[in-house]
Amino acid sequence: MSDSKTAAASETLNRQWRLTARPQGMVKDSDFTLSREPLPALAEGEILVRTKYLSCDPAQRGWLEDAKSYVPPVQIGEVMRAYGIGEVVESRSAQFASGDLVQGMLGWQEYSNHAEAGLRKLPRDLPPTLFLGVLGVTGFTAYFGLLEVGKPVAGETVLVSGAAGATGSIAGQIARIKGCRAIGIAGADDKCEWLVKQAGFDAAINYKSEDMSKRLRELCPQGVNVYFDNVGGEMLDIVLGRLAMRSRIVICGGISGYNDMRGMYGLKRYMNLLVTRSRIEGFVVFDYAARYKEAAQALGVWLKEGKIKYQEDIMEGLENAPAALRRLFEGKNRGKQILACK
Amino acid sequence: MSDSKTAAASETLNRQWRLTARPQGMVKDSDFTLSREPLPALAEGEILVRTKYLSCDPAQRGWLEDAKSYVPPVQIGEVMRAYGIGEVVESRSAQFASGDLVQGMLGWQEYSNHAEAGLRKLPRDLPPTLFLGVLGVTGFTAYFGLLEVGKPVAGETVLVSGAAGATGSIAGQIARIKGCRAIGIAGADDKCEWLVKQAGFDAAINYKSEDMSKRLRELCPQGVNVYFDNVGGEMLDIVLGRLAMRSRIVICGGISGYNDMRGMYGLKRYMNLLVTRSRIEGFVVFDYAARYKEAAQALGVWLKEGKIKYQEDIMEGLENAPAALRRLFEGKNRGKQILACK
Repeated sequence: MSDSKTAAASETLNRQWRLTARPQGMVKDSDFTLSREPLPALAEGEILVRTKYLSCDPAQRGWLEDAKSYVPPVQIGEVMRAYGIGEVVESRSAQFASGDLVQGMLGWQEYSNHAEAGLRKLPRDLPPTLFLGVLGVTGFTAYFGLLEVGKPVAGETVLVSGAAGATGSIAGQIARIKGCRAIGIAGADDKCEWLVKQAGFDAAINYKSEDMSKRLRELCPQGVNVYFDNVGGEMLDIVLGRLAMRSRIVICGGISGYNDMRGMYGLKRYMNLLVTRSRIEGFVVFDYAARYKEAAQALGVWLKEGKIKYQEDIMEGLENAPAALRRLFEGKNRGKQILACK
Repeated sequence: MSDSKTAAASETLNRQWRLTARPQGMVKDSDFTLSREPLPALAEGEILVRTKYLSCDPAQRGWLEDAKSYVPPVQIGEVMRAYGIGEVVESRSAQFASGDLVQGMLGWQEYSNHAEAGLRKLPRDLPPTLFLGVLGVTGFTAYFGLLEVGKPVAGETVLVSGAAGATGSIAGQIARIKGCRAIGIAGADDKCEWLVKQAGFDAAINYKSEDMSKRLRELCPQGVNVYFDNVGGEMLDIVLGRLAMRSRIVICGGISGYNDMRGMYGLKRYMNLLVTRSRIEGFVVFDYAARYKEAAQALGVWLKEGKIKYQEDIMEGLENAPAALRRLFEGKNRGKQILACK
């Protein structure tokens, strides 16, 4: 605590990554500037938080595009937006006290001021990083995307792309819990092995070394009933050719196109949606914010029962924030990519 | 009747168009052979029908492709499949009598034998061609596709492609009846004029002479809520860039790609489905066969009340069957394309 008090009260500088240029293609360190700035004063009702962990999410790449989307883009000069977990170091709110563990949109910075509504208090009896993964927006995305949009029925085949990623791996395991066959697509043999041996997927396809169409034919002779898609692009087009009747494709993300929106792959097999009476539906987890508690409860129970396995991939040091984000697009992360900031 | 009896009883030859080659691109006369063959004998329970009108439908082009679809392809050597209306000339069924007006899958031929289940008796008090258009599968497609898949809500903007076609024009008018704004896309000024002045569409876009994106921005400043799509391809991609939140795209057809499945245009803007939480859903009217009566009743009432206008484009002579079908892909038809066979 002594640390924190000093930081808040004195002239301790706040290290921050601000956006300086919109990335072209892959995010570069030089698209951001790491600066040190004084902390703004804490207004009545506000809470000062020191960042402990930052969440690295593919969606962050989208927030950098100057395009209409489901949230406004990060503006040039702004601190890079990021979910995070931190500790309250000073509070002018009755709802939060120094030492509280909290979650919120902390951004790529060491300290941040928040209104009460912007923070959520976290319990101390679980590893805090869980709230960026299985018990956070990552897990909620898998939960609502699969169950509410994909609507899997026991016995159906659920295919997941980006399956070794934080969201995909949970989506596949929820599918299993609901009595479905789960098949994962990932880009490395060790990822595929983890999916089958640890996470209980029925099968996994390494799209980099295997013939996707052939493997899908073998693994899904009756077609795919639900496709939980984090990738988009050519992979989605291949799956469009392998749909069962009345299948549901959940567009949770499209990481294949995030670094090159203009060179976007064009989907050619969409008329199979007619042939099979199937649907593609886009999905943003924020729409389910009012039901996050329900998801957290269900995921918490499955976690306790050992029905959901997860991996965390923790990089250290705020100075590595762009590099940590890049790992997602390079396929380097194993499970949830997190940046530890202390 | 004397005519008919002669036809049935004697050695009258049946003129038939049989498929001889799978069309490459646009359907050619030479893909079929017009032959004269004796009528097969009528078995117990069967009905002999003389064709009066044949329906020309974009879907027929799809039936010619040797690919898995919602119905088996027409085989080489088979009579070309087509809906039609005819008159019973001989019956060995108690359910049908000579002179009955019937509807069924008659095919491109003058006479055909049918089992009882393959025919539906039509009333005599309405123009028979209505049962190929507004009161037939064409109208049912518009009815179920728009209402069950598009789910329009009063006040929403419903965009229809192929809007001057038989199905599109009805879909737009049902949208109006349900309190929506209807905007049509067609490929000729006189088609657009008919849509607005006769069929009561709120606006129409001539995609051949106007800038689609610009016109969509002007006409749908709040975005498109429902897109009833008969065209697919680049037009669909443009509309994907103009979606309202939670919009529904009904894939009723994709005429832009029917003649060139391999050169299919690739949809690039599918990530807007995520941004707007929208869906694309494929649809085949046959799935609603159990509810055709409901559609026929509703459409019949609207027709009687003058709320649905329609156009028919009738070509004469079975020998012109391929040419009549071609008109759909050349954009020549004005409303329902029909081939009269007497």
